[in-house]
Amino acid sequence: MGSSHNILTRASVINSIEEVRLALAVHRRQGGRIGLVPTMGALHRGHGALIEAAARNTDLVAVSIFVNPIQFNDPGDFKQYPRTLDSDVAFCESSGARIVFAPSAKEMYPEPQKSFVDVEGVSEHLCGKFRPGHFRGVATVVLKLLQIVQPDRAYFGEKDAQQLAVIRRMVRDLNVPVEIASVPTVREVDGLALSSRNQHLTPGQRAVAPILYRALQLARERIADGVRDPEIVKREALDALRHPEVQVEYLELMDPGSIQPKERMEGSVLVAAAIWIGGTRLIDNVLWNGV
Amino acid sequence: MGSSHNILTRASVINSIEEVRLALAVHRRQGGRIGLVPTMGALHRGHGALIEAAARNTDLVAVSIFVNPIQFNDPGDFKQYPRTLDSDVAFCESSGARIVFAPSAKEMYPEPQKSFVDVEGVSEHLCGKFRPGHFRGVATVVLKLLQIVQPDRAYFGEKDAQQLAVIRRMVRDLNVPVEIASVPTVREVDGLALSSRNQHLTPGQRAVAPILYRALQLARERIADGVRDPEIVKREALDALRHPEVQVEYLELMDPGSIQPKERMEGSVLVAAAIWIGGTRLIDNVLWNGV
Repeated sequence: MGSSHNILTRASVINSIEEVRLALAVHRRQGGRIGLVPTMGALHRGHGALIEAAARNTDLVAVSIFVNPIQFNDPGDFKQYPRTLDSDVAFCESSGARIVFAPSAKEMYPEPQKSFVDVEGVSEHLCGKFRPGHFRGVATVVLKLLQIVQPDRAYFGEKDAQQLAVIRRMVRDLNVPVEIASVPTVREVDGLALSSRNQHLTPGQRAVAPILYRALQLARERIADGVRDPEIVKREALDALRHPEVQVEYLELMDPGSIQPKERMEGSVLVAAAIWIGGTRLIDNVLWNGV
Repeated sequence: MGSSHNILTRASVINSIEEVRLALAVHRRQGGRIGLVPTMGALHRGHGALIEAAARNTDLVAVSIFVNPIQFNDPGDFKQYPRTLDSDVAFCESSGARIVFAPSAKEMYPEPQKSFVDVEGVSEHLCGKFRPGHFRGVATVVLKLLQIVQPDRAYFGEKDAQQLAVIRRMVRDLNVPVEIASVPTVREVDGLALSSRNQHLTPGQRAVAPILYRALQLARERIADGVRDPEIVKREALDALRHPEVQVEYLELMDPGSIQPKERMEGSVLVAAAIWIGGTRLIDNVLWNGV
């Protein structure tokens, strides 16, 4: 267990790439293992679980807070994305982080970005189909953060299953010297996956939102029951998502590593969906690990 | 001056990524600065100048030798690319390298590569126009090598001016923690730039080959003379390349950083050309640094 986990120490808030490198270099030379939790801020208990996992398994946790413009295909979504730096810093401290790296867009992109990482195959389906360029922006900024912080381990939530698959593949393909760790999705008591976007839901919409996790669970149960035709599983899950306030963007059964469609229910199956409730887009997934 | 420069020590030949990382980690922990010279083997005095520069300015020089399949758009060119590992290792030793990293294609690409780095703008013109996918392959493999070796400095030849611009931009855009150093082109006495491909020239073709550097020099002289219209400079240089054995692929006046066409002869001008003599493609460039 990292020493930072139980003792509440102040976190240093650092805005510059050069300074965060210097601060971490001192720590690295003393042999300390560094954990990175990349976030876009608006932190909640889901991020808390990532920071706590990092604090248990590394010696110094850095949380990056950066709302990355190049991963938003919709400028309105970028603009309305919640920004709550002061409370985020307090949250990082209480969760066990010692460094909060919060660069400006100018610090991360001092000139127009010309270099991009594409991770083919794994980026094509699910969110990749509906948010063109999104995973290119994610892969690129995560690679930048990995180069800046040079962590021993970086932590990502399983709620963003496709993002996790993209990053795992990128790190393997590009030989980035980092271990990618994943942390299970944190949920409200009624099953809704925690997300910074949940705060955009009206109370009425919030009451509807757990329908997503229920439908995914149903799909997993049908697979566990022995249903082997993905079309039947999908149809039943889509039926469970029927609601006047819900628009389904996708619901798919995928291989969790390659994010390619599962033709047959064998090995692991990722059941992943995106829905809209009013103007808010929610994603979630469950994993079936075979019999 | 690095200690490895004057004393002839045996170089370790390492084929595995894990082993080269371990060997370099020991050195890094002792505070030694690491220089990387990425090559495709078939080493000549041009590479020698890179290795010697690295040995002067870092404490341990690693030379990578890897004929990278994903940067060859022409499978025939990949197949006939010279492979001379034994003499390359001896050459590395005598030039001051201590580690030769010579991985197999299977070691570098154990599964089909899905992650690629694109460097936009700078990859579009010159060789990028005639070798589709070439710079994507170059950027991707260089990023991989930088992640594996994690050098303090990496050395590239100015003969490959566009490659140098692509790598500089990639390193800046992706915050890769390495310094990119460039080394002037090494030439034969008659001006022909050293290249592994020169060995494919017949004696008759070899006698013709210096026409390329002469034409580039002529262009630079015309700019220095005060000619400000790039079309006039190009026309005169193209006239100088007229020869029954020579086919010109391109001759362009570019900004050396952005590799975009120069509209006016101000600031630095890169005069770059590619020609074919028989089945052999030769590239070269000269830089005009303004008045």
